[in-house]
Amino acid sequence: MQIRNVAIVGGTHGNELTGVYLLRRWAAYPDAISRSSFKTNLLLGNPKAVEQNRRFIDEDLNRCFTMKSLASTDRGTYESLRSFYLNQIIGPKGAPKHDVIFDMHTSTSNCGVMLILMDKNLFNLRLAAYIQNRISGAKIHYIPPTQEGQPYLNSICPYGLAMEIGPIAQGSLQSDIIALTDEAVKYGLDYLQSVNEGDQPVVSDAIEVFEFKELVPFPQIDGTIIGTIHRSLQGRDYEALHHGDPMFENLDGSVLHYEGQETVYPVFINEAAYYYKNLAMSLCLKKTLLTTEG
Amino acid sequence: MQIRNVAIVGGTHGNELTGVYLLRRWAAYPDAISRSSFKTNLLLGNPKAVEQNRRFIDEDLNRCFTMKSLASTDRGTYESLRSFYLNQIIGPKGAPKHDVIFDMHTSTSNCGVMLILMDKNLFNLRLAAYIQNRISGAKIHYIPPTQEGQPYLNSICPYGLAMEIGPIAQGSLQSDIIALTDEAVKYGLDYLQSVNEGDQPVVSDAIEVFEFKELVPFPQIDGTIIGTIHRSLQGRDYEALHHGDPMFENLDGSVLHYEGQETVYPVFINEAAYYYKNLAMSLCLKKTLLTTEG
Repeated sequence: MQIRNVAIVGGTHGNELTGVYLLRRWAAYPDAISRSSFKTNLLLGNPKAVEQNRRFIDEDLNRCFTMKSLASTDRGTYESLRSFYLNQIIGPKGAPKHDVIFDMHTSTSNCGVMLILMDKNLFNLRLAAYIQNRISGAKIHYIPPTQEGQPYLNSICPYGLAMEIGPIAQGSLQSDIIALTDEAVKYGLDYLQSVNEGDQPVVSDAIEVFEFKELVPFPQIDGTIIGTIHRSLQGRDYEALHHGDPMFENLDGSVLHYEGQETVYPVFINEAAYYYKNLAMSLCLKKTLLTTEG
Repeated sequence: MQIRNVAIVGGTHGNELTGVYLLRRWAAYPDAISRSSFKTNLLLGNPKAVEQNRRFIDEDLNRCFTMKSLASTDRGTYESLRSFYLNQIIGPKGAPKHDVIFDMHTSTSNCGVMLILMDKNLFNLRLAAYIQNRISGAKIHYIPPTQEGQPYLNSICPYGLAMEIGPIAQGSLQSDIIALTDEAVKYGLDYLQSVNEGDQPVVSDAIEVFEFKELVPFPQIDGTIIGTIHRSLQGRDYEALHHGDPMFENLDGSVLHYEGQETVYPVFINEAAYYYKNLAMSLCLKKTLLTTEG
């Protein structure tokens, strides 16, 4: 396989400034992201949301890319128009002009460097393994498609990944987070360059993947949050949560515990971007996936 | 002096949820903030901004309380109307119905527990000293009035203080930050109760105060930020910044240094709420103030 066109996207969420900043830097100093064997295009995901320092204007752009949404002939929202446009430029989904997408995000959760796969084909597993091998502590998160398919921008192409790098407050920049994102993208580009050169890079035979299982809402009454992440769980992304472990502490001082039987691994714990949906975290299963055929 | 009415305000900035959450808790469990010798009233500062999870709707409510703003007969913005209303309820400034205001804020900067005085009268210095003695690491920040006077909600009353507690991302809740804010308010109320009982609490004779000196903007070109807080300065609130110390790292990799001759102490380093004004931090002078007369 030969990679010809790569899209690097930032500002898919308008208040995640790291990607926006890196686009600005790479536009001024393109050598950092240039590789001889393919073309790299820089794209700002949601310019109006960036301008207003909001996650989105009308709806979450990064949920607008199911085939059904992209085929819709009823486009009222800013993001539905923007997704149509981006799909024309990057895609179209199914037969895209780009081979790979890197979509840069940040999180207020203690995610560190999280590489998110929406497709666990071998190419993506090896790409993620390659980056993980080079960034100490990087984790891999896989989100399986629902019945409607994948709604994420990344799903325009079968190859590539999203990056969630944090923790960092929305609407702010930090040198360390910028440096980590910069590294993750550059290692991704290096991997593609090696593949194009026929030099299949050595990666681990098996990788640990946190596979999305379910969302957990905050305790609430009539839509109002009445409990917070338990202090023993705050910041403990990727750590095992066992039956009976504390999850929430309520207004009245009572504690809610994890009632599932199966051990799970929470991620996006206390992600500020999900408060508007009253979501407290995602629970994952930890799986080992092979990066070799067969 | 006898304290009769105390106002506790949360949600003056709509995306600082800690105060909003505590108001909800105290409304349900008022014993925590009840004291026998005075009345405590709970007030939500900016309900519409809370609803929309934004700092403000039209303008920063916490800059609407100069005498000039309050006397204005040209009130178009939501916050100018809200400040008029709050001034009627809590104040009016100059002859207020309340004796003391505690205004609860959060910050994305590494502020810890920051007690902010807008008036350094002895009562306030002793109040702050009392709270500081009980919360390890709490700091005191004094913002002197400008020529126009004080624009802050707290300035409706001569007594009381604002609290900035963090670091925490906007639009999110953390148990530890809630607990610290709860403690700071309760110690404040305890102090007032002791004063009313004629039992002047013992506090340190002298306190260390970080006095606001000036704002520092981000490096920018045509209003676009082209540099971030230098990694050696990120999170180092209240620490000495000397002539020649690194302050910013730019897109092009160059570093900007502190050029002042006088040693200063930055606070609100990388506060997300100030990005819309392209402000990177406040510089302070460290002063020792006496808590005793004469």
